Amino acid sequence: MKSIGVSLSEQYLAVRKQSVDICQPLEIEDYQVQPMTDASPPKWHLAHVTWFFETFILKSFVPGYRPFERSYEVLFNSYYNGVGNQFPRSRRGTLSRPTVSEVLHYREHVDASMLALLDSDASDEVVFKITLGLHHEQQHQELLFTDLKYNFGNNPLAPSYNGCQILPGGHSEPLAFSGYQGGVYQIGVDAGNEFAFDNESPRHDVLVRDFALADRLVTNGEFLEFIMDDGYSRPELWLSDAWTLRQTLGEDAWTHPLYWRLQGDGYEEYTLSGLQTMNPDQPVCHVSAYEADAYARWKGMRLPTEMEWEVAVQKQEKTGNFAENGYCHPIPATGPGMNELYGNLWEWTQSSYAPYPGFKPFPGQLGEYNGKFMANQLVLRGGSCVTPQSHIRPSYRNFFYAGDRWQFSGIRLAHDQD
Amino acid sequence: MKSIGVSLSEQYLAVRKQSVDICQPLEIEDYQVQPMTDASPPKWHLAHVTWFFETFILKSFVPGYRPFERSYEVLFNSYYNGVGNQFPRSRRGTLSRPTVSEVLHYREHVDASMLALLDSDASDEVVFKITLGLHHEQQHQELLFTDLKYNFGNNPLAPSYNGCQILPGGHSEPLAFSGYQGGVYQIGVDAGNEFAFDNESPRHDVLVRDFALADRLVTNGEFLEFIMDDGYSRPELWLSDAWTLRQTLGEDAWTHPLYWRLQGDGYEEYTLSGLQTMNPDQPVCHVSAYEADAYARWKGMRLPTEMEWEVAVQKQEKTGNFAENGYCHPIPATGPGMNELYGNLWEWTQSSYAPYPGFKPFPGQLGEYNGKFMANQLVLRGGSCVTPQSHIRPSYRNFFYAGDRWQFSGIRLAHDQD
Amino acid sequence: MKSIGVSLSEQYLAVRKQSVDICQPLEIEDYQVQPMTDASPPKWHLAHVTWFFETFILKSFVPGYRPFERSYEVLFNSYYNGVGNQFPRSRRGTLSRPTVSEVLHYREHVDASMLALLDSDASDEVVFKITLGLHHEQQHQELLFTDLKYNFGNNPLAPSYNGCQILPGGHSEPLAFSGYQGGVYQIGVDAGNEFAFDNESPRHDVLVRDFALADRLVTNGEFLEFIMDDGYSRPELWLSDAWTLRQTLGEDAWTHPLYWRLQGDGYEEYTLSGLQTMNPDQPVCHVSAYEADAYARWKGMRLPTEMEWEVAVQKQEKTGNFAENGYCHPIPATGPGMNELYGNLWEWTQSSYAPYPGFKPFPGQLGEYNGKFMANQLVLRGGSCVTPQSHIRPSYRNFFYAGDRWQFSGIRLAHDQD
Amino acid sequence: MKSIGVSLSEQYLAVRKQSVDICQPLEIEDYQVQPMTDASPPKWHLAHVTWFFETFILKSFVPGYRPFERSYEVLFNSYYNGVGNQFPRSRRGTLSRPTVSEVLHYREHVDASMLALLDSDASDEVVFKITLGLHHEQQHQELLFTDLKYNFGNNPLAPSYNGCQILPGGHSEPLAFSGYQGGVYQIGVDAGNEFAFDNESPRHDVLVRDFALADRLVTNGEFLEFIMDDGYSRPELWLSDAWTLRQTLGEDAWTHPLYWRLQGDGYEEYTLSGLQTMNPDQPVCHVSAYEADAYARWKGMRLPTEMEWEVAVQKQEKTGNFAENGYCHPIPATGPGMNELYGNLWEWTQSSYAPYPGFKPFPGQLGEYNGKFMANQLVLRGGSCVTPQSHIRPSYRNFFYAGDRWQFSGIRLAHDQD
Repeated sequence: MKSIGVSLSEQYLAVRKQSVDICQPLEIEDYQVQPMTDASPPKWHLAHVTWFFETFILKSFVPGYRPFERSYEVLFNSYYNGVGNQFPRSRRGTLSRPTVSEVLHYREHVDASMLALLDSDASDEVVFKITLGLHHEQQHQELLFTDLKYNFGNNPLAPSYNGCQILPGGHSEPLAFSGYQGGVYQIGVDAGNEFAFDNESPRHDVLVRDFALADRLVTNGEFLEFIMDDGYSRPELWLSDAWTLRQTLGEDAWTHPLYWRLQGDGYEEYTLSGLQTMNPDQPVCHVSAYEADAYARWKGMRLPTEMEWEVAVQKQEKTGNFAENGYCHPIPATGPGMNELYGNLWEWTQSSYAPYPGFKPFPGQLGEYNGKFMANQLVLRGGSCVTPQSHIRPSYRNFFYAGDRWQFSGIRLAHDQD
Repeated sequence: MKSIGVSLSEQYLAVRKQSVDICQPLEIEDYQVQPMTDASPPKWHLAHVTWFFETFILKSFVPGYRPFERSYEVLFNSYYNGVGNQFPRSRRGTLSRPTVSEVLHYREHVDASMLALLDSDASDEVVFKITLGLHHEQQHQELLFTDLKYNFGNNPLAPSYNGCQILPGGHSEPLAFSGYQGGVYQIGVDAGNEFAFDNESPRHDVLVRDFALADRLVTNGEFLEFIMDDGYSRPELWLSDAWTLRQTLGEDAWTHPLYWRLQGDGYEEYTLSGLQTMNPDQPVCHVSAYEADAYARWKGMRLPTEMEWEVAVQKQEKTGNFAENGYCHPIPATGPGMNELYGNLWEWTQSSYAPYPGFKPFPGQLGEYNGKFMANQLVLRGGSCVTPQSHIRPSYRNFFYAGDRWQFSGIRLAHDQD
Repeated sequence: MKSIGVSLSEQYLAVRKQSVDICQPLEIEDYQVQPMTDASPPKWHLAHVTWFFETFILKSFVPGYRPFERSYEVLFNSYYNGVGNQFPRSRRGTLSRPTVSEVLHYREHVDASMLALLDSDASDEVVFKITLGLHHEQQHQELLFTDLKYNFGNNPLAPSYNGCQILPGGHSEPLAFSGYQGGVYQIGVDAGNEFAFDNESPRHDVLVRDFALADRLVTNGEFLEFIMDDGYSRPELWLSDAWTLRQTLGEDAWTHPLYWRLQGDGYEEYTLSGLQTMNPDQPVCHVSAYEADAYARWKGMRLPTEMEWEVAVQKQEKTGNFAENGYCHPIPATGPGMNELYGNLWEWTQSSYAPYPGFKPFPGQLGEYNGKFMANQLVLRGGSCVTPQSHIRPSYRNFFYAGDRWQFSGIRLAHDQD
Repeated sequence: MKSIGVSLSEQYLAVRKQSVDICQPLEIEDYQVQPMTDASPPKWHLAHVTWFFETFILKSFVPGYRPFERSYEVLFNSYYNGVGNQFPRSRRGTLSRPTVSEVLHYREHVDASMLALLDSDASDEVVFKITLGLHHEQQHQELLFTDLKYNFGNNPLAPSYNGCQILPGGHSEPLAFSGYQGGVYQIGVDAGNEFAFDNESPRHDVLVRDFALADRLVTNGEFLEFIMDDGYSRPELWLSDAWTLRQTLGEDAWTHPLYWRLQGDGYEEYTLSGLQTMNPDQPVCHVSAYEADAYARWKGMRLPTEMEWEVAVQKQEKTGNFAENGYCHPIPATGPGMNELYGNLWEWTQSSYAPYPGFKPFPGQLGEYNGKFMANQLVLRGGSCVTPQSHIRPSYRNFFYAGDRWQFSGIRLAHDQD
């Protein structure tokens, strides 16, 4: 694979630059805050992805490499127990130092070392780990958007990120369903030439029954009907854990999607460009799996399984509303046929995040990347409007807890086909 | 189904009597305590199963039936939002009234009404709901044991329940594995003549790969090796949520199964007959799925899926160490071949508790019985030493959270067959 | 003091019997529950006061005395770190064993040993410690009532204790104030012939300004006016910590005294004889110092200091509505002049519970009895309707946290005299 | 008082400039963080003190004044319920906007309006409220230091504030005590020409017994002896609430003053100039009242009352190590006689923060300034090394919870004089 060396350097530079570019519209203050444990400060993201290259590549493959700063080994370790201790996640927003400028300096230092390494060593292992590091950084590019949105969206001033394109108009077509034939299908991928995470392997047979999938995501307007029908306060629509959560939250119990705000008689929605009047044609976003499940039950339907989704997507081209569009928001599905399997919003499935039969984690410390999270979470599929297009694949498995709402997540309905 | 009427009365009386018999060795004080939210007081169990018959049968099918006591409608409703409000679960142990004697009086009142109903109305719906009520009461008979054990096992006096038979001796044979051929199998049952819960339906095809199953449960002695190898403190063996739990628990972090107590150089184990020296030949019990998973990973293996378990059990007779033995504790597997798929201990699977394809909850308020719990829990299979034998089936799906330890739960290893 | 020996035995027997008599109307279940951490089970009280005699007297003064049961040394230690570990207070209600019967047996065993000791050794130290133990037991006799009331009063069935006398009628006279001359007064007592707790010593001078004291407690009817004037929701009336508590409690924020229940247009009040229509002539009870302070501010007045209270009480006879009346509830003040300084309800003062100048705790382990609580609490004075009359003194200082409501506590207004 | 107008403008400008000057060495990131609820971000302090002038002065006295930004009315309201809602204190550190630059713009806007007002209206009420606003801003100048120290001191990088002078050397003299004659003294001040907070009034008589006061603060070296004698783990030395806190904190239980760090065999101490080797001659600082009380008990002494402190200080000049020195840290007491009553460190007293007899809060919304905190806190006296000298008075009462450690607080011993 040595011939890939040159182009990998270019990829490396492009992906690394993209992270900094995303932050370009920010004020220094915006790099710093962590409004909930899940939403890390942008400064931390910029440093952590750098730590990843330093820890897993420079320390292993550059003889005599000395870490840029000893304390960063703990401060910017996310969850790799095999590497060492971690600064508590919930306190990332309490560190005013290192400054943004110091973090950018850290990035430059690591980039210089990485480029020197790429010139001298393009072994398969180095190439693989760098490629992994770039996919890792792309994941954090998406998190930069979700975490910034949480920061801005919870600020009474509702500031704009000032980095998004103007949203296109367009009306959603009436919802229709496409039927799929049951049978034995193959899903997942085998490790090989194309990069994939360990959790997508191995490729294996699954048995699927006849099913139907909605040809677009549920819209704000459709979700509003659920709200108007008291959907949020009818226990028969909700999973038990969701109803318990509702009672735990008390006055803060959910009554609408995360970024909606009741305003007079109607709703506004916070977007990365600021508050807008809630647009009924846009896909409903920032809903938890609990809300998606309750909505589906209210409709007499269900969420798809991840197997069904992957079966359906095999007929699709990988096009859609990805980060490259710069909208930072889902847009209405305007075309006929199956829409938006890719991009726009991550689609909650009813499938718990579990190992595929024969799953093997990445070797060594990188085995903690995905495998240890295979409990209590659900799979989401397809990428979103803030996912880089080059990052997504048919077999790509994203995963979050059923109650999480700050990702760009939406609802696709499914039902059995009798 | 009218001909079943007579025998259903007998069944009814037998099951109802069994609940009271289980409590016979108790002191009045023992009926009252709730040492954790999950472990309800025996008094509450005795009343709640009675409430079930009153609420779902007497109120619907006996014209003019008046509830025994209005406040019981809330006090003894467990989780049926469709029926009405519930007294908070965490506070069940704070109610000194009604007394045990009043609860027994409540049982007698409802029993008399039920028997009168059975004489006059044996419609299919009544028969079904009574049968459901009896299976429901059998579930709570098992919970009487698990909750009492939690009560006694957390009391420094370590009292004996005084109702168990003397445990048999016996040595565990060395662990061996049985291989199973992959392919398409049928699991689950269709609603029909034989009673089953809604979550076991419909019967459907599943695709299973070649696999091997340990021919007995993991023993205390084998689990001790894991402990001695620092298994509890090596993060690479644990799921992320388990490791987070460990850190949350601080000084109370797990270092052994729930009822073990470090005593000098060795361990004692609390059983319902009191403290005993930990017996290395007995199956290890009262471990969470997290511990089961960590143990399996340490062995280079994994937990079975519920599909694999049900495939394997199809060749087995329904015999084993059930509640009828009166041991209240798992016993060593002494025979050759596949042991203990039934009885002894519930076996953690790696399968999340999810709806089978085509799942339909019971109609009406009883739809809350099982369906709403299909999130964040794992399936356990096979029943335990405190499960009534008549209660279990090959398709029976029990479910608890991965961190739960107070059930009679154990570990069966599995691995892929290459 | 040897001549007191005989009469001390009689006192001992009388006080010990009184504890058991208070529990006589209870069902076994009532001995067991602990509906909040502060409210211990009656069974625990009966055992703890016994542990007190065993620990501080029998172990020290009876050669070769062996504890009745080793585990009780931890189970029934309340807070004496100098003695050893304590079973967690919050879990007292989770111990179904020892049973009530076993606890009564423990009492008999200790009583027999104590009486034997009294026959053989009536040294000053023994006499003092027994006297202390009896005052200690009287404190717990009051707690038996307060904790039982919390148990019953939080049970939806609102059971009656069945041990109280029928309340007398009577109308409260209009509120009037008595003026007191400022100057230097003496309060407290010096250790000596009359028993007193260490926290009442030494007797010392205090400087008091002219002040006026209400001649009776605030009534339910007067407190209702505060409620109707939105007193509970006007922040300007409340101390900051009280307002913060209100926000922490959310939906459970206080809107009336602890045992009132909104019923239709009016209020009911739980008493130890069950629910009654709220009686506007009775003193308002089970209010916190925060509520007392807010009420006083609403009236443009303040709470008395403990110095003012003790100055005022010096002119009073020790008569009032004490436990001996058997009402278990405060009664209207019907006479002219200063009423109820003694009995009826403990009166919140604005004085923090602090050491008197020159304060010396009891020597040894008993030094933990009072001294270590001298932070963050307020002093209450005068005793209540469930305090034994022989237990109270002018110098008696009770103390609770400003937010506590489950004691029989009420409000006496004061104001400056200009 | 009109003639003060000119000089009040000068004072206004000087105090306002001082706040900005304190922040001059900071990076933008440092303005933003809130490492615990108590420690607000510098940006918030700069805005809140400005909000104070806008809310209580400009809105009342400048006809037609329009708030700089509507949302600031909530964002920068600290605790004035009478003014309106408050953004939750615990979330101040989650607001990346307004930026530092916008907050400075807000300051300029308000300053311009204030100076215009001072030119046109110097009524007594305006003068009083501006003076109050300036004292308020001085309080927040001290909090800027304490909160920054908490931020930096909890950062593993232990950054320096870079704004402090080099500490002087010097050895502490052996501890000696000065005796004071008991009697009736006057403390407090009456509202009048000299500014004072409402909580210092009225001037009134207090009765004090003979007492002795240590002539300097307890040093690090002396406090180390307490640590070496297992002071932190001996329950007999601690108040009950402190010991409970210790058990709640578990592994985080205190084992040394807040900013000490165990380093090899010895201790380092974080100062605003970074980590230094713990200097045994410096006064021990950042201890809670619980630690101060335990230390005093270990010495067989006690903390002074606030009355004793104010009696003692009446003989002293107001000199000491104040903010003007720029040390940002306490320095050794080197002189003979009574040292450091002023400056260096706030001195914990054993006096709860309570209203003086005849206390009247400031009228109107400003009544919330001090009065509502008169519960559950203790008084500290004398000012510290980060208190502006012009801010302190003999009658000045500072107040914090007994468990608070992040203020510049220290220990002065006292004992009775027999």
